[in-house]
Amino acid sequence: MTKAAGKPGTQGLFVSFEGIDGSGKSTQARRLHEGLLAEGRQAVLTREPGGSPGAEEIRALVLQGDPDRWSAETELLLFTAARRDHLERLIRPALAEGKMVICDRFADSSRMYQGLSRGDLRDKVDALHQLMIGTEPDLTFLIDMDPAAGLARAKARATEEERFEDFGVALQERMRAGYLALAEEFPARFIVIDGNRPQDEVAAEIRARLEERCPA
Amino acid sequence: MTKAAGKPGTQGLFVSFEGIDGSGKSTQARRLHEGLLAEGRQAVLTREPGGSPGAEEIRALVLQGDPDRWSAETELLLFTAARRDHLERLIRPALAEGKMVICDRFADSSRMYQGLSRGDLRDKVDALHQLMIGTEPDLTFLIDMDPAAGLARAKARATEEERFEDFGVALQERMRAGYLALAEEFPARFIVIDGNRPQDEVAAEIRARLEERCPA
Ligand SMILES: Nc1ncnc2c1ncn2[C@@H]1O[C@H](COP(=O)(O)OP(=O)(O)OP(=O)(O)O)[C@@H](O)[C@H]1O
Ligand SMILES: Nc1ncnc2c1ncn2[C@@H]1O[C@H](COP(=O)(O)OP(=O)(O)OP(=O)(O)O)[C@@H](O)[C@H]1O
Ligand SMILES: [Mg+2]
Ligand SMILES: [Mg+2]
Repeated sequence: MTKAAGKPGTQGLFVSFEGIDGSGKSTQARRLHEGLLAEGRQAVLTREPGGSPGAEEIRALVLQGDPDRWSAETELLLFTAARRDHLERLIRPALAEGKMVICDRFADSSRMYQGLSRGDLRDKVDALHQLMIGTEPDLTFLIDMDPAAGLARAKARATEEERFEDFGVALQERMRAGYLALAEEFPARFIVIDGNRPQDEVAAEIRARLEERCPA
Repeated sequence: MTKAAGKPGTQGLFVSFEGIDGSGKSTQARRLHEGLLAEGRQAVLTREPGGSPGAEEIRALVLQGDPDRWSAETELLLFTAARRDHLERLIRPALAEGKMVICDRFADSSRMYQGLSRGDLRDKVDALHQLMIGTEPDLTFLIDMDPAAGLARAKARATEEERFEDFGVALQERMRAGYLALAEEFPARFIVIDGNRPQDEVAAEIRARLEERCPA
């Protein structure tokens, strides 16, 4: 991928958002997308798990029903299948058309969650990724924030898919540490953003940091 | 796995059936199962894709709808997820109880189909298997037969899941060659059976060959 996102004939830029629950990933991904469109740039907003019709069906299969219905290994394979579909049907075609792709969570979420729940699976996550996915984002915005405040925000907007969000502040602390470790592991593409501030401030910094890395 | 299938406290025997469409896999797997039960041995009959409730749901997701809805890679990940569930929830527990497990198709079917449709994927099939499945059958009965006769039998009992069966004798010939190559690749566990004979004869030979390898 080059830096010339939005210019036809060149490969677009692949940007992901990561962070603990309630940190503002979805909010900031949407705002970045709206901002770019308002400037006349070509950008696609998407999310994981899901993002393409097939991947959304797999997402539903994984997230519905009894939390124990799938083992960690089976769940990892299902999420990898969903990611592969998303990549083939939406992300790669959009990048090939020179569009910027803004993705609310990507493979780093799998790395972080598996690292927390089953640390021994991190090797399998990486091996599966290398074998069946390959692609990494060009830039990953990690919205870092106070775990308790993030939890309070997430709880204020409850959904039916609460499986990953029911373990309180201790889990949020571990998620935060997991993400910060990933940012150290992949320093070339991670940009850590302070998410404790008002939405407008966070959005402005994200827009500025994107501009630094890849001028329009 | 040891040879003492059906004896409590020892690991059961894992037996799979493979062969071209209409070769009699399901018929012979069922007959072997019934025969063992009649002798008072403990045996479980199962099938792939599917075999456990979760795996059957994944099977339905893969086999329903437009044949192009999943790429070969995504389909491979979904079948591997189904196989992992089947292995964890049904096959391994039954083997651990000393039962014989009789499985109508297993990983060799993936190897054979991927070898046919996308030969370049065979390496991925093997890498995924090693990473996420690991287990191979102790014995695999390959029911080998005339491709045209197998097709005629399969067509006589049509189902709704015809995606893999619509390409005629040429495909059956290639499937047969693919299976025979696998039997050469894994000579220690493959037993090739002539399936052109009447059902009773085929069943009797399978029972005899099983007895040779693992006396009751
Ligand atoms: N900077 C902010 N200050 C205050 N509230 C915010 C801020 N950013 C987002 N919110 C609010 O917090 C809630 C969670 O935000 P959002 O859904 O964007 O987080 P998220 O990281 O996508 O969460 P999840 O991991 O649960 O998907 C929303 O109600 C949102 O409006
Ligand atoms: N030895 C045999 N001689 C004649 N007919 C047979 C024989 N074995 C099976 N059949 C019949 O052929 C048809 C296909 O058999 P079966 O369903 O067992 O094959 P299969 O290998 O499981 O096929 P598929 O790959 O489509 O699942 C059935 O109608 C069955 O009754
Ligand atoms: Mg969100
Ligand atoms: Mg059958």
